[in-house]
Amino acid sequence: MCAAVTTELVIALDAMGGDRGPDTVVPAAVSVLESDARARLVLVGLPEVLEEARKAHGGRFGDRLGFQAAAEVVAMSESPREALRRKKDSSMRVALDMIKAGDAAACVSAGNTGALMATAKFVLKTLPGIDRPAILAPVPSLSGQTFMLDLGANVGCDADNLLQFACMGSVVAADLGGLASPRVGLLNVGEEDIKGNDTVREASRMIAASGLNYIGFVEGNTIFSGEVDVVVTDGFTGNVALKTMEGVAQLIARYMREEFSRSGLRRLQGLAAMPAINALKHRLDPRGYNGASLVGLNGIVVKSHGSADSLAFANAVHVALEEARKGVPVHITRMLESQKVTCIPA
Amino acid sequence: MCAAVTTELVIALDAMGGDRGPDTVVPAAVSVLESDARARLVLVGLPEVLEEARKAHGGRFGDRLGFQAAAEVVAMSESPREALRRKKDSSMRVALDMIKAGDAAACVSAGNTGALMATAKFVLKTLPGIDRPAILAPVPSLSGQTFMLDLGANVGCDADNLLQFACMGSVVAADLGGLASPRVGLLNVGEEDIKGNDTVREASRMIAASGLNYIGFVEGNTIFSGEVDVVVTDGFTGNVALKTMEGVAQLIARYMREEFSRSGLRRLQGLAAMPAINALKHRLDPRGYNGASLVGLNGIVVKSHGSADSLAFANAVHVALEEARKGVPVHITRMLESQKVTCIPA
Repeated sequence: MCAAVTTELVIALDAMGGDRGPDTVVPAAVSVLESDARARLVLVGLPEVLEEARKAHGGRFGDRLGFQAAAEVVAMSESPREALRRKKDSSMRVALDMIKAGDAAACVSAGNTGALMATAKFVLKTLPGIDRPAILAPVPSLSGQTFMLDLGANVGCDADNLLQFACMGSVVAADLGGLASPRVGLLNVGEEDIKGNDTVREASRMIAASGLNYIGFVEGNTIFSGEVDVVVTDGFTGNVALKTMEGVAQLIARYMREEFSRSGLRRLQGLAAMPAINALKHRLDPRGYNGASLVGLNGIVVKSHGSADSLAFANAVHVALEEARKGVPVHITRMLESQKVTCIPA
Repeated sequence: MCAAVTTELVIALDAMGGDRGPDTVVPAAVSVLESDARARLVLVGLPEVLEEARKAHGGRFGDRLGFQAAAEVVAMSESPREALRRKKDSSMRVALDMIKAGDAAACVSAGNTGALMATAKFVLKTLPGIDRPAILAPVPSLSGQTFMLDLGANVGCDADNLLQFACMGSVVAADLGGLASPRVGLLNVGEEDIKGNDTVREASRMIAASGLNYIGFVEGNTIFSGEVDVVVTDGFTGNVALKTMEGVAQLIARYMREEFSRSGLRRLQGLAAMPAINALKHRLDPRGYNGASLVGLNGIVVKSHGSADSLAFANAVHVALEEARKGVPVHITRMLESQKVTCIPA
């Protein structure tokens, strides 16, 4: 039994965030509105940006595309504390305020991650039973995808935090991944009970007793093996693992380009292999995985990669729409309240 | 000015360790003796194993191939403490005892990592100025290779440990990588000084003051970017990063196989692209990186992967030979004593 679902859910888009701001966000919004007839989006940004977007696209989507003015922009390099204190009318802040006021179900931003998390915590507060929100994202695996958290919000975590992450990850894997009983693993340096430090051993006992579908400790390679659906770790380890993943994929892509351009013959071979190589690229395309959820907040906040293009940003908007339609925050609260782990996907 | 180098350095090989024991180690030893005329190896194992190896290869290499009997074998699943307490005549222990007795300069084992580290610490002790040994290995990067440590010996590390790892990594990168002034980075969740936890921030200040060629915090993707030669981290994070790396490479290899076998046409395309794909495989072949060094001990100990084949094990033996010829432990001691960071490669 899941949350009430309405087709009238509004998603607020921070039009100013990311490396290219509105040049990415506005085309992404148009593409989402074209592909999802039920989607309702509000662009939040500087008046001149909104004016331009309104002129270009205002007529096409009726009240499915709204506009909300903000007076300033949080810079990508700005300290989270400064952004929170001084930029009370930033596009990011106004988008989050819309959730608090009930005018939006979710917000998507490609802006400064630290500022987004700090401002979201301040404006929305955490859900009952959640001490700290976490950053969650799917990564590719042999069985489809693995939901990983925390990817960098909390550099140090205690066993309670890790248990809460396990619950939140399980809800998202059920709601977004359509899994009846997601397999949860705790990242460690070995699979045996004696491995790791006191915190992971204590967290392991707690998650095992929680009723979640806990499969125990998993190692770094298991993230991708298809044996686990949710991988729980602290934000330090999770961030390093995520960036390591990106680095290895880039290294292999670079090696491939080098090998297929070593000679005229190799270039021909590369041309012959192009369909398979393009299919491989498509499967590993990080744009298909863009959209990290800030879970544990009293509202839905999705972070797009700062360098995302409009295709990638649109993917993040779809993540926000899906979380809003399924009611992820309500499901997290219910799971924590009931101490039950099985969330029936809506 | 580096350590006295002799061509008479002996490497003790634990013939019983790893998934296939002597079936891997003996052919690897033969291949090293064939390819390196100065190499002197001693096989350490059960008498019947030695007898068979002696019959097959004893005559060919004269006193360049020796045999040392041991009465028992440490199992791959055995607890390190039990192995240390009860298996005092194991092939692993006897090989380490040979270093202590001055009969070998180094030992290579594909056995139980925990038991090898615990026994090596007990038998050899740590170098002066080193509180804890670490596991170090090279990983591929855009500029060749990056030396990473700790890869799993110490799940929790303080700032002093990390500084010592930085020194040891720098010595190995100079001696094995031939670098005059290796660039050292400390793994963190961001590059700014304020990122991370107290331990990494304190370690960063200490390494910056050490005189090493410290480039500051690096993120997971930088391990492979060619911008850093030595990446320092605690054993928890390092182990997760290493396994994540393996997992991503396996995932991509699997995706490639799938894409090149999707149809008859795709198979033909794969055939056409085979030279480039094989070259790519060769560059990423983990066997070329086999041989993790247990650094910080009063002696040279190299761990081969348990599932290594003889080509991979031979690579680990070459790592041990190189460390012995360069005198890595002496260089580490000198660097710590002198507080100087520039180790001139021998």
